Order: sequence, then C-alpha cells, then structure tokens
Amino acid sequence: MHIPLDRQQDIPLYLQIEEALRRAILSGTFAAGDKLPSTRSLAGKLSVSRLTVENAYAELTAKGLLQQRRGSGAYVHHLQPLPEPQQPLSLAPFPLDRFTTVTSRLDGYPDIPLPEHIINFAAGVGSSKVFPLEEFRKILLSILSRHAEEAFSYGDYCGYYPLRDTLGRILTAQGIPTRAEQVLITNGSQHAISLIFQTLLQPGDTVIVEEPTYAEALGLLRMHQINIVSVASDRHGMCVELLPALIKQHRPKMIYTIPNFNNPTGRCMSEARRRRLLALAQQAGIVILEDDFVGDLRYNGKSLPSLRALAAPGSVIYVSTFSKMLLPSMRIGYLVADSEHYLRLSRLKHVDSFTSSNLIQRALDAFVTVGRYDKQLRRAGRVYRLHRDAMVAALQRHLPTGCRFEVPEGGLFIWLQLPDAVTTTALMPAAWQQGVTFARGECFHADEARGAQGLRLNFAANTPELIEEGIARLSRAILKVQSN
Amino acid sequence: MHIPLDRQQDIPLYLQIEEALRRAILSGTFAAGDKLPSTRSLAGKLSVSRLTVENAYAELTAKGLLQQRRGSGAYVHHLQPLPEPQQPLSLAPFPLDRFTTVTSRLDGYPDIPLPEHIINFAAGVGSSKVFPLEEFRKILLSILSRHAEEAFSYGDYCGYYPLRDTLGRILTAQGIPTRAEQVLITNGSQHAISLIFQTLLQPGDTVIVEEPTYAEALGLLRMHQINIVSVASDRHGMCVELLPALIKQHRPKMIYTIPNFNNPTGRCMSEARRRRLLALAQQAGIVILEDDFVGDLRYNGKSLPSLRALAAPGSVIYVSTFSKMLLPSMRIGYLVADSEHYLRLSRLKHVDSFTSSNLIQRALDAFVTVGRYDKQLRRAGRVYRLHRDAMVAALQRHLPTGCRFEVPEGGLFIWLQLPDAVTTTALMPAAWQQGVTFARGECFHADEARGAQGLRLNFAANTPELIEEGIARLSRAILKVQSN
Repeated sequence: MHIPLDRQQDIPLYLQIEEALRRAILSGTFAAGDKLPSTRSLAGKLSVSRLTVENAYAELTAKGLLQQRRGSGAYVHHLQPLPEPQQPLSLAPFPLDRFTTVTSRLDGYPDIPLPEHIINFAAGVGSSKVFPLEEFRKILLSILSRHAEEAFSYGDYCGYYPLRDTLGRILTAQGIPTRAEQVLITNGSQHAISLIFQTLLQPGDTVIVEEPTYAEALGLLRMHQINIVSVASDRHGMCVELLPALIKQHRPKMIYTIPNFNNPTGRCMSEARRRRLLALAQQAGIVILEDDFVGDLRYNGKSLPSLRALAAPGSVIYVSTFSKMLLPSMRIGYLVADSEHYLRLSRLKHVDSFTSSNLIQRALDAFVTVGRYDKQLRRAGRVYRLHRDAMVAALQRHLPTGCRFEVPEGGLFIWLQLPDAVTTTALMPAAWQQGVTFARGECFHADEARGAQGLRLNFAANTPELIEEGIARLSRAILKVQSN
Repeated sequence: MHIPLDRQQDIPLYLQIEEALRRAILSGTFAAGDKLPSTRSLAGKLSVSRLTVENAYAELTAKGLLQQRRGSGAYVHHLQPLPEPQQPLSLAPFPLDRFTTVTSRLDGYPDIPLPEHIINFAAGVGSSKVFPLEEFRKILLSILSRHAEEAFSYGDYCGYYPLRDTLGRILTAQGIPTRAEQVLITNGSQHAISLIFQTLLQPGDTVIVEEPTYAEALGLLRMHQINIVSVASDRHGMCVELLPALIKQHRPKMIYTIPNFNNPTGRCMSEARRRRLLALAQQAGIVILEDDFVGDLRYNGKSLPSLRALAAPGSVIYVSTFSKMLLPSMRIGYLVADSEHYLRLSRLKHVDSFTSSNLIQRALDAFVTVGRYDKQLRRAGRVYRLHRDAMVAALQRHLPTGCRFEVPEGGLFIWLQLPDAVTTTALMPAAWQQGVTFARGECFHADEARGAQGLRLNFAANTPELIEEGIARLSRAILKVQSN
C-alpha cells in the first residue's frame, strides 16, 4: 500500500494517512472485512512512527470505518448501510437519457463519467486545455496570501463592487453602456436566468423563445409552469416576422433569446431583426431577456450590436457569464438590468442565496483587471476557430448525403440535421456503439418531437484529431441506421 | 505615492502598478484631471525600469482611465459617467431601515460599512476572530497545489460526493440517519430554503411559522406570494397546542421551524412538542421544513433529537449550513430530503444554478474529514459561551426594569423585550447616538407591528469587553427614550 505523504504540509501525518485510508475504504479499494496491515508494518513502510499510524487507525475507528480486534488487528468495517427509501417514486422520472453529457446523475448517486473510448460532442463548455487554469490558480494563491480575510468576508449581495465596475467597463467598451450599479453578480448565468424568471413571471404566464433554444432555460420555464411558445428560427436567427401574430394570440410577458451563437444552433440574429424585435417588444410592453453566453467568442464575420445596446432603458435584461470562457466551475455569472428590474432582482438575490463567493469574485476581478481576460479571449478564439474548421472539414468529408449543417461564425456548437429517415433515438445507441456521443435535439425544443432529427455537436472541447475521428464514427453510425 | 510591489509574485510588475493606480483612480484618491507623476519619477521611486511604468500607463490609457498628452504628461480621465436611469422607481422601496446589519445596500450602490465607533449587535453570524480562517486558507492552498484541475471541474449537481458522504456520516453520528444520496449541496442554506419553497409551494399556498422567526425566510415567502400564518412561541418553542385549529382553518402546505436556538429568540422546542408537531403534521399531510442553522452550537443543557430523526421518511426536510460555524462567505449549505422530494429538489437545483463551487466543497470536505470541524465546534462553543455569559451578566447589570430576556442554551442570539412604552423605532436612533445597534424585532414577524418591542442581540460576534460597553450604551438609550 502506497500513501503519498507531504511532510511540508500543515496537515499532521496521521491525518494524511487517515484521509488516504478513508478514501480507499469509501471508494471500495478495501472491502468490508479486509484486514489492514499492522501498525508496525505500515509505520515501517511509510517511515513514520508507529504512534502516527495508531492515531490514524484510531480516527478511522472513531468514524466507524475500522474495527480493531484485540490481538488480531484492524479490519475494515462499513457502517450498516441505511435501508433504501421506502417511498415509491411517484413523480415521472427525469428524462436523464435526453442528456448525454451526464456530467451528473440527478438521482443523488455519484457521477459516472463517460467511458474513456467515447468521443464526447455533447459537452456544453469549451476545452479544459484552453481554460487558464494555471493563471487562475496563481491569482487565487496570491489572493489567499494577501487578502484572505477580505476574501472570506460576506461582502455585497449585489456582488463585489470592483468586479461589477470592471464588468461595466468591459461592456461599455463593447458598446453596451453599463454602470456598476446595473450589474448584479449571480452564482453562474443559469442562476441569473432563474432569478429573472422568478422575479418577472408567474405560473401560467407565457414566454416566447426561438426554436431550438437552450435546454436548461426550457427546463426552468417548465419547472415554473410557464407556457412556452416557440417561434421558428433560420440562419439569421429568430424569425421575428412571425412575432406580431404570436404576441397578439398569446400575450407573452417575456421573450427569451440568444442572439449571438445560439445554443444549440450557433446562429446569430441579423441586425435588422434585432431592431424589429426591439420595436415589437417595446410596443407590446414585453421584456426581452438577452442571453449572451458566448457573445464575444467570434471567429469571423462582423460583430453585431447587442439588443441591450440598441434598446430603450428598462426593456432588455442582459445575462452573461465567464464560465464558458474561463472556468466552468467558477459559478459566477451576471445580469445587467435597469432601476426597477434591478431593485427587484437584487431583492430576490438577497433572499434567495445572499452573496456569491467573495474569493472567486476577487480572483475573477484580478484576472480580468490585469488584462488577462482579453488575452484569454484571443487565445480561446484562435484555438476554437481551428476546432470549428476541423469539424466543418470532417463533416464535409464524412457525412452521408441528406445531412445539413450551417457554419457558425463563433461560439461552441454546430447544429446538425439528420436525413429524413434517421432519428436521434435510433442514432444514439448506434453512435455509442461506434464510440461517439452528442446532445440530442429533443432537449432544445419545447415540443420535443420537433427535435427528433437534430444534433448539437460541440467542436470547441475536442482536438482536431478527435473531431476527425469522432465525425467519421458518427457518419458510420448514421449510415448504419439508414441501412437498417 | 507608495505602491507596494511584490517581486515574488507571478503578476508582472507593470500590472501590479496598473492595478494599484486603477484602484486609486476608481476609489477617488485621484480625481479626473489630476496629473500623475512622470514615468521617470515614478520609476525612480518604485525602483523599477521606466518601461515598466510606461506599460502600466499604457494599460490605464487603453482602459480609458488615463489621457496621455504629448510633452505634458499623463492625466486622470474618467469615462463619461452614464446618465442616471430615467425610469421612476415605481416599486415600493425595500425597507432597508429594518435591516441594521446593512452588510450590503440593496439598491446596487457599494457597501457602506458601519462607522467604527458603533458596537454592532445586529450581525447574523459568529465572530470573525473564531472562524478558522488560517486553517481553511491552508487547506485551500493545499488543494490548489495538489488538485487544482479537479477542483476547477464542473462536478456533480447534487454536490461533491465525498462531502455528501461526510455530511451523511456526521448527521448519522448526531442521530439523524443519513445517506449521501439524501444530501443535496446548495449555495448556502438560504439557497436550500429557496429551492424548497420553490419546489413545494405555489403562490397563494399557506405556510405556518413560529413567531418570531428568521427574517429572510419571511422575506422569501413574501417574495413568492405565500400566505404566512404565525403561531406563537414561548420558552419551549412553537406553541404546538395551537396548531390543530390553525391547520383546520388554513390548510397549510408546510410548517417552517427552527427548533434549535431559534433565530431570533435562541429558544429550543421541547421534545414533547417536537413529537406532537410531527404527529400533527403527519396526520394532516403537511411537510415540515426543519432549519437547523446552529443546532450543534450548544453551551449547556441536554441536546434534543432533531425533528428529522424522530420523523417518518418523507415528512421532514432538514436544512443546515457550515456558514455560521466556519466561514460565512463559503456559501455552501445543504439539505437532507427523501426520495420524491430529493428528486424534485435536485432537478430544480440543476436548472436553477447547476453546480456549487467544487473548490470550496473539496476544501470543506478536507477540513471536516481531518477532524477539524469537531475541534472548531468545541473552540467556538468555548468562546461563544463566554460571550453569552458576558452578555447575560451585562444585561442583568445594566438593563432598566421592565426589560425581559431569556438565557439561551446555545446559538448566537439573545432576544430582548423592551418595556411597554419603548419601541424599536424610538430606540434605534437613540442607540445609534450612544454608539450601538441591534436587529429590530419587526423583521422577524410576519405582522411587523408585533415585533415593535423586540431586539435581537448577537452575543457571539463581539468580545466580552465590547459586549459590556455595548449593553451599557443600549441601556442608556432605553432610559433616554423612557424619559422623553
């Protein structure tokens, strides 16, 4: 048994040993009833005193993970497992199978990662190889060394003021005039969307979304019992000309849109449609929620003015995040809103979850302030552009006839339409067998059946080599389904 | 101008200078139009090369904070301030004045901390001097050194599995049999309460709460348009014998209670009442939300079985947090629920805010696993007990006749009832003038007027010396109000 010990560390050796053994027991490396080495032999192997090992065993015994039998030794002892819950699961089970990302199961059991050999086009984020992990780690270390006390204080419900100020400046430079007082920091942009839905909508209200659209926004709307009305989109984004009839018929409270590099289609709404959408919404008194999750991740083409930049005050709430560009796990997003909306949203943020992590907010502000965000944006843009081009080339090379896709000018995703006879339901197991997976079109449609022939393919997260191989596999799977 | 430079750091010197100057400009140390020192002179003062300072100035110029005039020097330049929002604030303003903690204003403007000379009995958390800041910092550093990549990954929506396992073991040891699969990690316990209200309640539903109770739970219920029915409490907690009539009349969906060291009263519900409450709720099919925010912070007396430990599966959802015991800013809380509730709550957590910070969860798990939580609990208990005793002694020594209070056996707060003629509305400015503040009773009552003579006093957060002085000041303020 090898236990790495760090003698420089602040944590006593016996606790390091205890931790290692505990994890080995919990992970199943040791089974119940297994005998651990004697304290003398383990102490010898690890070059520590016998007392150190005895202390570690005592801790484990106190936690109920070890049984020490006098004269016989120490045996792994699992706490009696609790009985399984007796209540039947009367709710409809969550459609886990629609999500092939499976970063997490939703029934509370631990993660089961994808098998190694599966090429994953289903992810919702960029490449972990591009994330500025090392730089962010260093900034965290520096804050923990210099400002730990402030970083551990509660802070402002609305968010760390310098970060809000920084965000205001960045957005202003991007053409969205923003003061810090209009920026509300949230626990990720999903949380921002959740707060906005909770604040502005009631069960039974109607929201218009473009089709297809972000799966988790649909999930949230369903959870809050909001009527979802979908409006078609084409390569220039939401078909705004269809809106007047829908507005008249459904009297929506809100229009939710992803105008830049839509999730899942990668499409951008044209400027003319943006202006028309704003005019229509303003006339009807409808709030627009602009989800700009990767708006600044553009690889070619001309950037378009954001809805918020074009709008009258109070008519557009803007949501964005650093998760896609920097580190998904930071869980810091933000929204930009005007006085009345802002006041209501900050009140709800306060009673919903108080503050967001001051430590991470400070690290983010330091990261952005010292000019690293721009650098990171350029770096990610260069890499992801290559990935996009590799996927486009692979799709053109391998796809059977009858498949359709558009080339996005930015973002993370390519949206693929299958030939008439092929559905994702048939394709998914065939693709899995070939060693590739994707996000199913169904989850991006309010009326799921309408997504039965769409796939969202993440090009950003994989290398060109894996993309080439993955698309070849996917194409073989499509052919197999077609030939059945 | 002094700029502290850290030459060991990974951040280049020019960016350290840029950051310092930027903050000086944003904080108003430099005003618009001020001339900065020449690059030559600043470089000399800081013992860096002139190029370093030039780079710093260039960054500031690029950000619009500096104007460099050829041959004349660098001048502070503020971005044109944006016009104030034009929309009137048509919503009723949030009653800021009810909250004297003012850790944050809610209108989006930056924090204004309490003046130094004010002794603050209004806080909702323990003493920053007791928080294990240094130990937690070291654990974070160790995780960032050894497991940064995992700590920066998305992780499990339900929470980091080892942490959930650890929590399950701790709770099981405390008499609440819990499996990891029943633990859902949230962004603080307030967030857990928010998810529970969102999942189980609809606008127009009724919730029974004990009076007085946690202000932010009332705020959240109001925000979701839930009818709040208050039931009186005495020194043995909620007056459960009043429940049958209220249940019959109001048909509540949920009973929200803080059975241990209630916020604000510090009272514990007797065991007999706990059992009676459970029987009544089960009979009527009402879910109980047990908020156990400081249940393990007991200084004397016998600990009481938790509602969840006594209850049938599915009838009690349990919420707790580490924020009060460790660091308020960690923003990690948790709930324990059974199968059907758990499934719905984890679904909502997923679409509400995805995951919680993996880094902080891992640090927390390491902290707890190595036995430090117990040590910290004992340490905090020792210190806070002294603080409680100091406040009790000071209250007995200084309070004018007619004031009433009970001695809590744990927690953070003493609840003080003012003499008949004195209200918090009159007392608050008088207390402020004497240099002391408190949390007003109004915020802990659904019918605010009923709290007009209650004060919540936090004994944990202040030293015995400050407590003695603060209670003397408070007593003088009460006398002044009485003599007017």
